[in-house]
Amino acid sequence: MPVADGAHPKCKVLVLGAGNFGSCLADHLGDSEHEVFLWSRSAELVAKFNETHRNPECLQDHVFPETIKAIGPELPSADVIKNMDVLLFAIPTEGVRATLTDLRPRLDEEQLPLLIFVNKGIEIATRSLTLEIIADTCGIKIATVATFISGPSFAKEIVRRQPTSVSVASLSESHAEKASRVFHQPWFRCYTGGDPVGIELAGALKNVYAIATGVSDGLGFENNTRAMLITRCLSEMTRIGAAYGASPLTFLSLAGVGDLFLTCSSPTSRNYTVGYRLGKGEKLEDIIRTLGSVAEGVTTTKALRKVIDELGVDAPIATAVYGILYEGKDLQGTVRGLMSLPPLRELDLPAQAGGPVKRLMQKLGLSA
Amino acid sequence: MPVADGAHPKCKVLVLGAGNFGSCLADHLGDSEHEVFLWSRSAELVAKFNETHRNPECLQDHVFPETIKAIGPELPSADVIKNMDVLLFAIPTEGVRATLTDLRPRLDEEQLPLLIFVNKGIEIATRSLTLEIIADTCGIKIATVATFISGPSFAKEIVRRQPTSVSVASLSESHAEKASRVFHQPWFRCYTGGDPVGIELAGALKNVYAIATGVSDGLGFENNTRAMLITRCLSEMTRIGAAYGASPLTFLSLAGVGDLFLTCSSPTSRNYTVGYRLGKGEKLEDIIRTLGSVAEGVTTTKALRKVIDELGVDAPIATAVYGILYEGKDLQGTVRGLMSLPPLRELDLPAQAGGPVKRLMQKLGLSA
Repeated sequence: MPVADGAHPKCKVLVLGAGNFGSCLADHLGDSEHEVFLWSRSAELVAKFNETHRNPECLQDHVFPETIKAIGPELPSADVIKNMDVLLFAIPTEGVRATLTDLRPRLDEEQLPLLIFVNKGIEIATRSLTLEIIADTCGIKIATVATFISGPSFAKEIVRRQPTSVSVASLSESHAEKASRVFHQPWFRCYTGGDPVGIELAGALKNVYAIATGVSDGLGFENNTRAMLITRCLSEMTRIGAAYGASPLTFLSLAGVGDLFLTCSSPTSRNYTVGYRLGKGEKLEDIIRTLGSVAEGVTTTKALRKVIDELGVDAPIATAVYGILYEGKDLQGTVRGLMSLPPLRELDLPAQAGGPVKRLMQKLGLSA
Repeated sequence: MPVADGAHPKCKVLVLGAGNFGSCLADHLGDSEHEVFLWSRSAELVAKFNETHRNPECLQDHVFPETIKAIGPELPSADVIKNMDVLLFAIPTEGVRATLTDLRPRLDEEQLPLLIFVNKGIEIATRSLTLEIIADTCGIKIATVATFISGPSFAKEIVRRQPTSVSVASLSESHAEKASRVFHQPWFRCYTGGDPVGIELAGALKNVYAIATGVSDGLGFENNTRAMLITRCLSEMTRIGAAYGASPLTFLSLAGVGDLFLTCSSPTSRNYTVGYRLGKGEKLEDIIRTLGSVAEGVTTTKALRKVIDELGVDAPIATAVYGILYEGKDLQGTVRGLMSLPPLRELDLPAQAGGPVKRLMQKLGLSA
């Protein structure tokens, strides 16, 4: 596989999912001289894309390289997949289990393409991270080499080649390095690591905390408060992550603090916007009805609440967001409650921790 | 000493230094019903403050509580100091050695007030942190109980009671907790920790990285790039801190990521402004001449360069800032150089590290 070469390799890449993020990554990879196939379930999108080199559903102003070919609407066959060096999954977390179940019989374990996942979030019904969904649907061998990419990366800036950096993590660090070599360019830098669970948790949790930051800004609080809140959100994410079994230092990564910072300081983030409009006095149902797209943080808040309860970890900010979204708690009273908590130690990591990751590693045959 | 009580104590506090930060903290403490004395070397400031309850040199729009009394211009006598529960040092780092040398004979080691430091930066001639300056001038016993407060806290927002949180750190955690009880209010939350070196380094280094972020914004880079840069700056700060002997997790604190985030995302930060104007094409000497106040990051960059060289730690961003400020390096070429570095592991902490802190702890008789 050319991916294994030290220099920047030329690969055949199949991008599954033609939304914002899948499309911008296809664009980046096509521009990096890979041969890129962009799969969509929409026959109309496939036809229009191949005719106009534009995506009719997102990034509409952008003209994609002619080297990218859209395919679909049927899931690609085993023959097509066998031909690929890289499968890039850019589908929503809620669709990953079904897609992998359909795809599994078409994967040849002896000649496995590099499998890269860029979705974020926790599967609602099972509260599973994607790594666990992969283990459930594709088995241990595939889960241990699956690679995750996450970081502060607005799609519309990536297609304009604004300098961007991402975290690339896998339980198999050699696979993380291979993925890094596929994606890395001076304008798209990749930083590798070995804690996919931490990267995934950070990607999911940041959306909950973006709602909190939006509320604070909507209520009119200023710079000191925003910096305080983002820091305390990061501290809380790190505590939840450590209790889950991730490495606390993973939250210092591009997928951790980097994406948290981007999501919490950008008025174009959907989750931040939900919080901001709540802060301005709108009702949640009105915001959701008029938002025009899904704000993942609203559903993640619900899943996170259960994770927090199961872990028995202290998470006052996420609990406050849950109270505002699902228990009709009053905003001003919630803020007063948070500010009136007793003085605390700054980084209070749980002493006994890591149950979920221990169980997952046992499932993967990787427990120490 | 009333500070030792569990509940919020009433204290006599002497604030040394009537600049922006000393004044806003005096205001906060006076409003929290402490008895506050604000010392200034300027006889005119002392007279005007006591007459008008305004500081003629900073926060001019603000009326201070009448419970705050300005004193000076002579350094307070041993009798005055003996009467105090808390001495709060809000003077520039370059003045700390001289002030402590003058003050030391007036301190009674058997009846020591709580000593709190809020200055940031590295002493240029010796490259010492404040903890080491305290050890040099006041001895080991005083250094081990000295407490440091740092965090994302614009003075003008503190005097308007915008919710603010800070890190409070000391080698003696019981002293950090005492300081926290003096300062803590619902609108001014204190988080305690035991790594004053990490807190101090973060406070000094963030000013260098604010220049880098300013340059990036001045050159017209957007959100992905800013989030990337702040994250990589944090990673670099953490690496330098770990090499120095601080705890890497300290950089997740309010004084670490919180203050970095505030300083790097605010056009009112002097250091950010230096970078921004460099990015827009102005010359450093013109910027410094017209800035109207000192940008600490410019001098810290020089001291940091020596620290980096001594530690042998990889710090490409700080080195790039040094090149731009002191070696006439071209901005676009510097950016290209940084972006063209090979792919890296995300958190590359030094394996062997901690020489400076080990030496300092030996000096303090605290080495393991």
